[in-house]
Amino acid sequence: MAEGLAIMTSGGDAAGMNPAIKCAVEYAAAKGYKPFLVYDGLRGLIDDRIVEANRELVSGILHRGGTILRSSRSQRFFDINFRRQAYENLKRRGISKLIVIGGDGSFRALNQFYADFGVPFAGIPATIDNDIAGTDYCLGVDTALNMIRQSVDSIRDTASSFSRAFVIEVMGRHCGYLALTSALSCGAEICLVPELEYDLNAIGARLKHEIDNEGRGYIIAIVAEGVKMSDYLTRWIKDSLEMDARLTVLGHVQRGGSPTVLDRIMAYKFAVAAVEALDAGETNAIMVYRDGTYGHLPIHTVVDSKYKLDPALIRLGAPLGR
Amino acid sequence: MAEGLAIMTSGGDAAGMNPAIKCAVEYAAAKGYKPFLVYDGLRGLIDDRIVEANRELVSGILHRGGTILRSSRSQRFFDINFRRQAYENLKRRGISKLIVIGGDGSFRALNQFYADFGVPFAGIPATIDNDIAGTDYCLGVDTALNMIRQSVDSIRDTASSFSRAFVIEVMGRHCGYLALTSALSCGAEICLVPELEYDLNAIGARLKHEIDNEGRGYIIAIVAEGVKMSDYLTRWIKDSLEMDARLTVLGHVQRGGSPTVLDRIMAYKFAVAAVEALDAGETNAIMVYRDGTYGHLPIHTVVDSKYKLDPALIRLGAPLGR
Amino acid sequence: MAEGLAIMTSGGDAAGMNPAIKCAVEYAAAKGYKPFLVYDGLRGLIDDRIVEANRELVSGILHRGGTILRSSRSQRFFDINFRRQAYENLKRRGISKLIVIGGDGSFRALNQFYADFGVPFAGIPATIDNDIAGTDYCLGVDTALNMIRQSVDSIRDTASSFSRAFVIEVMGRHCGYLALTSALSCGAEICLVPELEYDLNAIGARLKHEIDNEGRGYIIAIVAEGVKMSDYLTRWIKDSLEMDARLTVLGHVQRGGSPTVLDRIMAYKFAVAAVEALDAGETNAIMVYRDGTYGHLPIHTVVDSKYKLDPALIRLGAPLGR
Amino acid sequence: MAEGLAIMTSGGDAAGMNPAIKCAVEYAAAKGYKPFLVYDGLRGLIDDRIVEANRELVSGILHRGGTILRSSRSQRFFDINFRRQAYENLKRRGISKLIVIGGDGSFRALNQFYADFGVPFAGIPATIDNDIAGTDYCLGVDTALNMIRQSVDSIRDTASSFSRAFVIEVMGRHCGYLALTSALSCGAEICLVPELEYDLNAIGARLKHEIDNEGRGYIIAIVAEGVKMSDYLTRWIKDSLEMDARLTVLGHVQRGGSPTVLDRIMAYKFAVAAVEALDAGETNAIMVYRDGTYGHLPIHTVVDSKYKLDPALIRLGAPLGR
Repeated sequence: MAEGLAIMTSGGDAAGMNPAIKCAVEYAAAKGYKPFLVYDGLRGLIDDRIVEANRELVSGILHRGGTILRSSRSQRFFDINFRRQAYENLKRRGISKLIVIGGDGSFRALNQFYADFGVPFAGIPATIDNDIAGTDYCLGVDTALNMIRQSVDSIRDTASSFSRAFVIEVMGRHCGYLALTSALSCGAEICLVPELEYDLNAIGARLKHEIDNEGRGYIIAIVAEGVKMSDYLTRWIKDSLEMDARLTVLGHVQRGGSPTVLDRIMAYKFAVAAVEALDAGETNAIMVYRDGTYGHLPIHTVVDSKYKLDPALIRLGAPLGR
Repeated sequence: MAEGLAIMTSGGDAAGMNPAIKCAVEYAAAKGYKPFLVYDGLRGLIDDRIVEANRELVSGILHRGGTILRSSRSQRFFDINFRRQAYENLKRRGISKLIVIGGDGSFRALNQFYADFGVPFAGIPATIDNDIAGTDYCLGVDTALNMIRQSVDSIRDTASSFSRAFVIEVMGRHCGYLALTSALSCGAEICLVPELEYDLNAIGARLKHEIDNEGRGYIIAIVAEGVKMSDYLTRWIKDSLEMDARLTVLGHVQRGGSPTVLDRIMAYKFAVAAVEALDAGETNAIMVYRDGTYGHLPIHTVVDSKYKLDPALIRLGAPLGR
Repeated sequence: MAEGLAIMTSGGDAAGMNPAIKCAVEYAAAKGYKPFLVYDGLRGLIDDRIVEANRELVSGILHRGGTILRSSRSQRFFDINFRRQAYENLKRRGISKLIVIGGDGSFRALNQFYADFGVPFAGIPATIDNDIAGTDYCLGVDTALNMIRQSVDSIRDTASSFSRAFVIEVMGRHCGYLALTSALSCGAEICLVPELEYDLNAIGARLKHEIDNEGRGYIIAIVAEGVKMSDYLTRWIKDSLEMDARLTVLGHVQRGGSPTVLDRIMAYKFAVAAVEALDAGETNAIMVYRDGTYGHLPIHTVVDSKYKLDPALIRLGAPLGR
Repeated sequence: MAEGLAIMTSGGDAAGMNPAIKCAVEYAAAKGYKPFLVYDGLRGLIDDRIVEANRELVSGILHRGGTILRSSRSQRFFDINFRRQAYENLKRRGISKLIVIGGDGSFRALNQFYADFGVPFAGIPATIDNDIAGTDYCLGVDTALNMIRQSVDSIRDTASSFSRAFVIEVMGRHCGYLALTSALSCGAEICLVPELEYDLNAIGARLKHEIDNEGRGYIIAIVAEGVKMSDYLTRWIKDSLEMDARLTVLGHVQRGGSPTVLDRIMAYKFAVAAVEALDAGETNAIMVYRDGTYGHLPIHTVVDSKYKLDPALIRLGAPLGR
């Protein structure tokens, strides 16, 4: 009988999860495994929401945002008894391998599950924050960046109609990747992120100079939510630059949208790599893309390091904070 | 020598202004007028930012959001001396007719200008709030509604991945048209607008029932900014429904975007009607679309009435507030 | 026991069918009917692909293009024996009323079905060709127009980079509504439709004049597929105007895409009207929107008349064919 | 006096050209050069359409498709006398360095220009065909792929409504990169490209099997224009698979659209690298991105090699042609 291989999504959802699911199912089947789908993440693992995959279940999902498997956070998974229940669910179906598409927290949870019951897993990094150590890319980032771009471009349409400032808050609790990359690719004048110091006085002086001498008509500012400065910056621009200022908080608009081509291709490559790693006997490996090549790293290398923003990106972005 | 006819935009910008400008220029020229463009709204009228229109100036603008003529608010226009200066600018160029694309405030300002100096104008209603009395449609509304729709659809992609509530704040200081129409067309569960009473207790009871008994997985709430309830509602959902809730404030994303086909067609019809009204000797008429037909109304009928939301829309939307 | 009311889609698919399905189900249930869904159109009626509707089956479909009920053409439905089989399927489930979302052909088929077995139906006009007599609007048209607009706007981006002509073929076998409306709203220089004569010599002379004297840099031509002139016109421009010319055939791109706000609102209004017409005892009525108001017409008024393009639209478009 | 550095676009236009222009201007100025813009490509070089760049000329262009500098093909540039004229235009303005954004043909033309008059240039690869040797990426590719994706996703909406086949012709005269990548990322069933043999009999047998046994409802086929098989394949599907089949020819829709984030970032990196290469005294270097790193290659390495499709891509795509 074919060995069972289950696929699940966990943590915050990200575009690209669906193509990764579809590809993992198809490639696992081609490799001789019997693929399963776990619905509702870790909670579904405990509550046995596990079904055998078939063509119909993963058909027509390539272009859907989010994850058809849904996701969840689960306190119960910290309890060995619930993990045992999850293990029994897998065992009963002959599932001996797992692919989890998600972030650091999910990888840690499955690493503990492996320590307890010896079910090896492969992790596919997926988070729009792009803050997983060891990989240059996490699924969902390109789609999120392009959703932000469309919103900023739309605001820019109207920006030049009036002399006005626009503050746009984007996701990123501890990581300014989305904000900095958006600011650079959309030509923002201000960018505030957790990793970089900023100096409102310097920003004010720079922009006043441009308004007075170079005909600057409007200002676009991009702020990572983790800085908690969106409201303040909006008021500050009104007061200091005497310019009407409006705030946009994009929120979950950034997580949605049909996956871009890059997210689909990355999903494909990561899914194939994950099945192959498991097939080669790897345990607890996290798929990564680094310096233009695909590979995988042991989980500890990934979850024990802190993600650091590319110094080149920081250098480019620094002038937007002063 | 051909009589001069000047076109300007004033007040908040709205998609559809550019196609209206282009069409007014072309149709006025076809009718034998010499068309002019006024840049920067009322301020440009005073400061003489007026140029003769030509093909190149209005070429390639049909699909641009915002207004290439820019807009402004002008305190100086309340002063007769500045209005006289504006009048001299027009007179010097042989401009004896005006088309203004904007809202109530702009119409009133030009009405005063007419009282002073006898320059007749035609008004084209343009505001994404859709709150001008006497017309069922204002330029920019369809584009704004579709920008909101795309954001809500994008959020919906991700909504079903998690059990979660999404609060989306849309424009509308005194008028809930955008919010209500969006809520109905995007299938929201909650909608708060200035014109309608709401009852959080009733909303809470209704949704709790659906969560507990009908498998409701997520909630989408649309709130008009004028209600000033976005932050409160987000926290209230977290506390009362014990569901994670996130806020999106769309802001000027709603004003941008390429004009939809409907906004282009309406722009075309309004622009033709405005030129024809002026050509027929009408003074101070506001173009309107009502019950499926185009026409115009005297300015007093428009600016002296308060816009009222369609009772049918209120009836449909009322259940979303209780 | 509640009376059964079944909803089906038939003929070519159009955006707006899904919101109409969802709304018809919900409103029928609110009116006390037991709603059913017929899958695969007339074929499904014969082959008994009929299921009772529930919240889950119509959940999350508002923003989906196409029709979740699928559609089909069925030769068998012309045979009384197969129609009898369809009737038995309905009878067995207590279904005594039908709503069909589709075009002329579908309405005729159900009219015959009524003549045979007395099952009354209400028709909701849905076809991107907008060629159903008696109504100014058919579901799917606004979405199709905006899909075309996005393609033409995208081509326009690149048009001014080079001196070049672009021929764009859009849908419309016998009806030039899509082509003409697109040409006007996107500012095309040429438009060929079945309803209008065209004169290539005149077109050539007009454009040569503009190229030589007015700095015209590029040409956009929109052609209805029914004219069968796309390939010829592309070659003709190359030969006659000595300008590089490229053809785009949009095909089914026009049928897809998430329904626009207008298509959702129209779907909503038509669905409510259809349920109410059936509930009021109407038989074989087609929902229509005319001169700004909603109503319904007897089927013969609709299918026995030939749709005629709005003379105003023809007048506006005529100059693009000479 | 500052040394002049001129920027031009040449050959077919591609999204990403505008951000590259803007960034090259700004970075060249920051490095102490006096930046110039050449309009209309090689033709403009001859006809002296060269202006000094300033903030206003490159403002608000980041999000525009196409190229604001326009492009052209020029037979005259093959003539030494016209090249001399071009040289005099540059010399008169103190322009001693050139950046050309375009493809192989443009690079060769400027290489000859260098041989004649010693004006060094840096080339930035830009072509949606992605067929320049030595670099993994050319500007415009990601935007083109995502334009194709949106069209295919839109067709997919409607595909499952009917049992039907859709043939989509995409750009690519000699290179199947766009077609293959689109086919893989959009989940097509058939893909025909110039680099791969195909076997219609095998394709027919495979799909018939899936239709008969696995419930396949629809077919999506992507064909590179260079194969000249779009019309034939459409008829063949109708005849052999007895399935209704429709053709979409995307044409220049693929070249348009606002540049994606990736195209903006690549534009930025290439533009900085080009200025730095010229500043470091490099002559006739082509910027490349390979295996995850940026660099440049001598022009001969690039234009004397034939671009070869990535073998991995060929391997993945091969099953779609049999």
